[in-house]
Amino acid sequence: MGTLSEEILSRKVGRQVRAGEIVIVPVDYVLAHDQTAPLAIESFRKIGRPLFDPNRTVIVFDHIIPAATVQAATLQKMIREWVREQGITNFLQEGICHQVMVERGFVTPGAVIVGADSHTCTYGALGAFGTGMGSTDIAVALATGKTWLRVPETIRFEVKGELGHHVYAKDLALAMVGTIGVDGATYMAVEYGGPAVRRMSISERMTLANMAVEMGGKTGLVEPDDTVDEYLRGRARDPYERITPRDPVYSRVVEIDASSIEPMVAVPPDPEHLAPAAEMRKVKIDQVFIGTCTNGRLDDIEIAARILKGRKIHPSTRMVVTPASTRVALEAMARGYIQTLIEAGAVVTNTGCGPCIGRHQGVLAAGERAITTQNRNFSGRMGDPTAEIYLASPATAAASAITGYITDPRSLD
Amino acid sequence: MGTLSEEILSRKVGRQVRAGEIVIVPVDYVLAHDQTAPLAIESFRKIGRPLFDPNRTVIVFDHIIPAATVQAATLQKMIREWVREQGITNFLQEGICHQVMVERGFVTPGAVIVGADSHTCTYGALGAFGTGMGSTDIAVALATGKTWLRVPETIRFEVKGELGHHVYAKDLALAMVGTIGVDGATYMAVEYGGPAVRRMSISERMTLANMAVEMGGKTGLVEPDDTVDEYLRGRARDPYERITPRDPVYSRVVEIDASSIEPMVAVPPDPEHLAPAAEMRKVKIDQVFIGTCTNGRLDDIEIAARILKGRKIHPSTRMVVTPASTRVALEAMARGYIQTLIEAGAVVTNTGCGPCIGRHQGVLAAGERAITTQNRNFSGRMGDPTAEIYLASPATAAASAITGYITDPRSLD
Repeated sequence: MGTLSEEILSRKVGRQVRAGEIVIVPVDYVLAHDQTAPLAIESFRKIGRPLFDPNRTVIVFDHIIPAATVQAATLQKMIREWVREQGITNFLQEGICHQVMVERGFVTPGAVIVGADSHTCTYGALGAFGTGMGSTDIAVALATGKTWLRVPETIRFEVKGELGHHVYAKDLALAMVGTIGVDGATYMAVEYGGPAVRRMSISERMTLANMAVEMGGKTGLVEPDDTVDEYLRGRARDPYERITPRDPVYSRVVEIDASSIEPMVAVPPDPEHLAPAAEMRKVKIDQVFIGTCTNGRLDDIEIAARILKGRKIHPSTRMVVTPASTRVALEAMARGYIQTLIEAGAVVTNTGCGPCIGRHQGVLAAGERAITTQNRNFSGRMGDPTAEIYLASPATAAASAITGYITDPRSLD
Repeated sequence: MGTLSEEILSRKVGRQVRAGEIVIVPVDYVLAHDQTAPLAIESFRKIGRPLFDPNRTVIVFDHIIPAATVQAATLQKMIREWVREQGITNFLQEGICHQVMVERGFVTPGAVIVGADSHTCTYGALGAFGTGMGSTDIAVALATGKTWLRVPETIRFEVKGELGHHVYAKDLALAMVGTIGVDGATYMAVEYGGPAVRRMSISERMTLANMAVEMGGKTGLVEPDDTVDEYLRGRARDPYERITPRDPVYSRVVEIDASSIEPMVAVPPDPEHLAPAAEMRKVKIDQVFIGTCTNGRLDDIEIAARILKGRKIHPSTRMVVTPASTRVALEAMARGYIQTLIEAGAVVTNTGCGPCIGRHQGVLAAGERAITTQNRNFSGRMGDPTAEIYLASPATAAASAITGYITDPRSLD
């Protein structure tokens, strides 16, 4: 009995657990990337034990790839040597870690995955308990194959109705943050359900689960269903069972009517201050960015390409597009989306985190404004601390690239 | 009467000029890019005169694009504002400046073009006198539309025979540097001729002319012919006449038999120390780079893609490919080359200078070794000063990506 989070952890622990208990849980995979692996490796070496399983350790290079500085190159060199030394079989340089973890079948319903990245919560899109941790906790997981957790309480978003024209999972995710605030789900599991969520693709569910941590959530979860099974056919690395909530007791249930949501923009400096894009059209934009673990997938790029097809971005605005993986990039090329975006004037980078973390590929100068499909808009995240970051859907971002101002994509129809 | 360089300058000055004279020459275009424009703008402002011609000023963003640091973003913001303020019509963000200058028809036979970039000599591929200058000289040209020059002496490379299988213009260019040394053509015009050069495409001629400065050359020149006319049909921005040498007196003529050249590698830390690739196979390579104004064009990417088709790059080697322009990128996508390279494991970046100058997109750590298609291998150019840079053709670079060691491409046949 329990919420989806309680059921997953009960299965792993081997007895019924309840929110509030401290449990020690075996983990299915441990993830680190080029920015967090160095500290995790340092702590792991201090522990002095071998890796719990070189086949269940996943190292992804995505944050500053290719290396933009000697410092980044030096850390990457060290990580590569460690990967070789430890015989780690899953060393991947083909996209953003969360995208690659899902695409390559590491993420299955009921799995527990810890990652040295706060958006590890994304895996809940497939019914896995994914959670981000600091490098020291990751080091312990690397050495023991276990982690400790306080079983989280659960907040449930029950989403009814249908998203309207040019309203997307990202607008819904932003509306959720706006409704409960950036600390509205602190240390809670965020469970997403209701008919609007059940109709969503894996990509859309990833957008929702990805932003659970923006409300303080420990993880974000969608109940696995046929959509998940279909996605995982021929892809899942491990056998799995669908785990579902059984007589769940939620700390809070928030009902949302999808049809009431408009194209939204999160106003800096945090993701909870929302405004309808239609009311922000006086905000001039210097840079548009489409990408990240939130919205850099094929459907996101398709939405942007459809809006930009046969159009040009505004001459005083620049646009960066970063596909979430090489698979996404190749499929987007096969369908002509990348070509359309380049022809419209966008700079399409290699796959990775792109400018989301302000380390390369589109850093902002003082006073510049960006509209981006990423999940965070804290001051200084993309460069100068006086730069402003507005969060939106790929449609709203693409529409804004055309006009040079924040633009409701419906206004361009 | 005179060499190609003397004839071009005589036409511009309006009287016969000779090597050794100081002349003041009107310029057709003045170029600066994101790294050099800031200093040029600063000096230009001090002069306090208006731009000589906003339609003949070309500003290209290519060196650190998208911006990789707040500092780069800040300079780019300043340049954008200056471009708007001055009404500059040619503000281009679609590739490496030299590639874009040629592709977009700014470069025509007989033109004099000064650029705040040392590889402005590339334009001689089309019979234009292009030369790189410091930012202060560029500022004077921006304000006056003129520049002063000592009319250079000319060294002539007379190239006979045919390049063999998997031997390219880059191998020939390296062989030339190796033959006369990095100061063998100091302040001279380097004239490339003979049957092997006459058979070359514009792209191959650009590879030759581009490396004139690596011998100290003031400019590099190929006599314009039907190949140039054909390339410029519908592309040239200005009317032009073919200018040819008339009874030229050369300071030195160097004969090269193309058929004697092998796939070459320039051994760090300068481009004159050459070794046949076949003799370097014990040199382990960490990074392969294909791109730059020397070798980032469609034919270069095609060569690499053909070699990598159906193969994978070595697991301990990484590979970066940077198309020289968005036109190159789009055509390479249409032909499937980009897809082939990505499938082989290469990281394909947005167009620009890529990691050539060590500012992003593949900076090297201490002790790392790169083989690259660029033109310079000075210590520290691509990152840490102890990193080693080997220069080679796209074929040799691609072959090395497969084996992880410097590899003669003929050995993979």
